[in-house]
Amino acid sequence: MTKTLALGLDLGGTKIAAGVVDSGGRLFSNVRLATPASGLSRDLAALFDAAHAAVSAARVSWKSIRAVGVGVPGAFDPKTETVWAPNLPGWKKVPLKRLLEKALRRPTFVEGDRNVQALAEAWLASDRPRNLVFLTVGTGIGAGLIADGRLIAGTRGVAGAAGWLAIDSRWRGEFGRIGCLEFVGAGPAVARLAENALRKRARSLIRTIGEKRGGKITAEVVAAAARQGDATARRVLEEVGSNLGRGVAGIISLLNPDVVVLGGGLARAGDFILRPLRRAARQWGQPLATRQVRIVRSELGEDAGILGAARYAFMKLEEKP
Amino acid sequence: MTKTLALGLDLGGTKIAAGVVDSGGRLFSNVRLATPASGLSRDLAALFDAAHAAVSAARVSWKSIRAVGVGVPGAFDPKTETVWAPNLPGWKKVPLKRLLEKALRRPTFVEGDRNVQALAEAWLASDRPRNLVFLTVGTGIGAGLIADGRLIAGTRGVAGAAGWLAIDSRWRGEFGRIGCLEFVGAGPAVARLAENALRKRARSLIRTIGEKRGGKITAEVVAAAARQGDATARRVLEEVGSNLGRGVAGIISLLNPDVVVLGGGLARAGDFILRPLRRAARQWGQPLATRQVRIVRSELGEDAGILGAARYAFMKLEEKP
Repeated sequence: MTKTLALGLDLGGTKIAAGVVDSGGRLFSNVRLATPASGLSRDLAALFDAAHAAVSAARVSWKSIRAVGVGVPGAFDPKTETVWAPNLPGWKKVPLKRLLEKALRRPTFVEGDRNVQALAEAWLASDRPRNLVFLTVGTGIGAGLIADGRLIAGTRGVAGAAGWLAIDSRWRGEFGRIGCLEFVGAGPAVARLAENALRKRARSLIRTIGEKRGGKITAEVVAAAARQGDATARRVLEEVGSNLGRGVAGIISLLNPDVVVLGGGLARAGDFILRPLRRAARQWGQPLATRQVRIVRSELGEDAGILGAARYAFMKLEEKP
Repeated sequence: MTKTLALGLDLGGTKIAAGVVDSGGRLFSNVRLATPASGLSRDLAALFDAAHAAVSAARVSWKSIRAVGVGVPGAFDPKTETVWAPNLPGWKKVPLKRLLEKALRRPTFVEGDRNVQALAEAWLASDRPRNLVFLTVGTGIGAGLIADGRLIAGTRGVAGAAGWLAIDSRWRGEFGRIGCLEFVGAGPAVARLAENALRKRARSLIRTIGEKRGGKITAEVVAAAARQGDATARRVLEEVGSNLGRGVAGIISLLNPDVVVLGGGLARAGDFILRPLRRAARQWGQPLATRQVRIVRSELGEDAGILGAARYAFMKLEEKP
C-alpha cells in the first residue's frame, strides 16, 4: 500500500460515519454510529470514537493517516475556523478543526456536508468534471459548488445557499422565505401542494398510501403514488420539479458547469422530478450554458460523505507548500 | 523599473483601449481608438495598431512585455480557445489567442470583459477582496465572479450570465427572457417602466428632460429626472433597483462574496438604484452572507478594462510552472 491515507469523518444530524480512504478513492473501513445530538461534548466524544474505530477497522496504524477531513451539517467559517451546525444543539462557533487536531494530532480540514459531497461527486465521476454543482433537495435545499476543480466556500463558508434564490416575487412573505426556491422546490412544497390538491379531489393514491404509512402526506408518499401511476402525485412533482428547474437554470447561467448532480431525499423521486427540472432549466438558462450541461441524479451511496471529506483533506494537503 | 510588464487590451463594441501595465497596477500608457465593427479583419488590424501604439507610447521595448491580456465583449471558450462576441459582426469562434500570439509573439490570455473588469476591481480595491462579484448593468446584465481570488469562467466561458436569473415566473414569455433579471433589472426596464408611468400621468421631469435630449426616454433621462427630484423617476428606479436586488440576493446566497461591485450605465444612477438594491438583497439573501457583504458602486474609471486584462495575464503567467 503506497498511496496516501486520510480519515474521512461525516458528521450528520442523526448519524456519524467514519472511514479510512486512500488517495485513489478506495475505502478501507466504514464505521457508523448514531449522533447523540444532545450537546457538544457528547457529539465530540462520539466523533472521536468513530474516528478511532474507523482506523482500527481499516487495520492500519494511526501513523499512516496523513490527514483528517470532516463534513459537518452546516458551515465552516474560514475566518474564525469554527463550525456552525444549526440543527445540532450546542454547535455554534465550535472550533472543531482545532479540537480534532489536538485530539488526533493530524492536519484536519472541515467543510460543510454539501461541499464535501460535491467534491466526492467530482472525484468519483468517470469523466472527472472540473465544474460541478451538487444540489441537495430534501427538507431544505443547498448546493456544493466546484469551479475549475476547486470548492467555492465563500467568505464565511456559507456559499451554496441555493434555497434562498428568489424565484418568485408573488410569494414574498414576512420571513423572507416565501418566494425563495426552498419554499417552492423542496420536500415540504411537495407535501403542501399535494395536500392542496387533495382538498379538491377525494380520490388519489396519495391519500391511500399516506394512510398506510401513518396518515402523514410527505414527499415520499407523493413519490410512491407517482410511481404507481397517480396523476395528482405526478402533477405535484411536475410543478415542484419545474420550480427547481428555474433555480437550477440560474445556477447554470451563473456557473456554467459540466454537470448538475441532484441528491437528497427528493432525488429519489427520479424522473418525476428530473424531467420537469431539466425542461425548465433548459427553458430558462443561458443557452450556451444549458446546451452542454448534464443534469443527473447522484449515484453515490451512503459513503459519499466519508469519501468527500477524505478528498477534501487530500486537496488541502496538496495546496500546502 | 524592475516590475514585470504586460500589455492590456480592451476590445469593446465601440472602442478599443490598450495600455502597458506593471505588476503593481501602474499604467504606463493608454491608447484609445474606435472599433471598426465592420468585420473581423478590420477589427483585428485595429487591435494590432492599438497594441503597438500602446507599447510605443509607454516608451518601453517590446522585449520588456512579458504577456498580453485581452478582454473581449463576449466569452472566451477555454475548450476551443476561441472568442464569441455577439455584438461584433464576424466574431464567432475567433481564435484570437492564437492570432495574437502569432502576431505579437507573447503568451496571450483572453477573457470576457466583465471577467477582466472583476479582476481589476479585486486587484485595485484597498482591502483586496478574495471573493468578489462585479455586476454590470446597462442594456444587458452580466457578472464577473471571483471566488477565493480566482476567476469563475465555467466550462465554456459563459459563467456570470446573471441576466438569465429567473426571478419571476409571472413574466415568463415565449423567448425565455421575460421573468429573467435582465428583463426587469436593466436599462430598458427603466425606460419601459417610465413610459408606462408617463402614460398615466402627464407631468413629469422625465418627459421634459427626454424632450430636451431628442425625445427618447432612456435610463439616463430617468436618472437625470430622479436627481432633479422627480417622484415618478425615483419610483421607477426604486422598482428596478429592487428587482436587481432580488437577483443580487441570489448571487450573494450562492457565492457568499466580500463585496458586490455595481458597474455599467445604470450604476450612474447611484443611490437611486443602490439603496433599493441593497434593501432587497438584504431582505432576500441568506442572512449570514448578506450581513457581511458590501454592495458598492465601481470606482474604477475607463482604464478598468486595460488593467483587468493585464492583471489576468499576470495571474495566468504565475499559474504556469
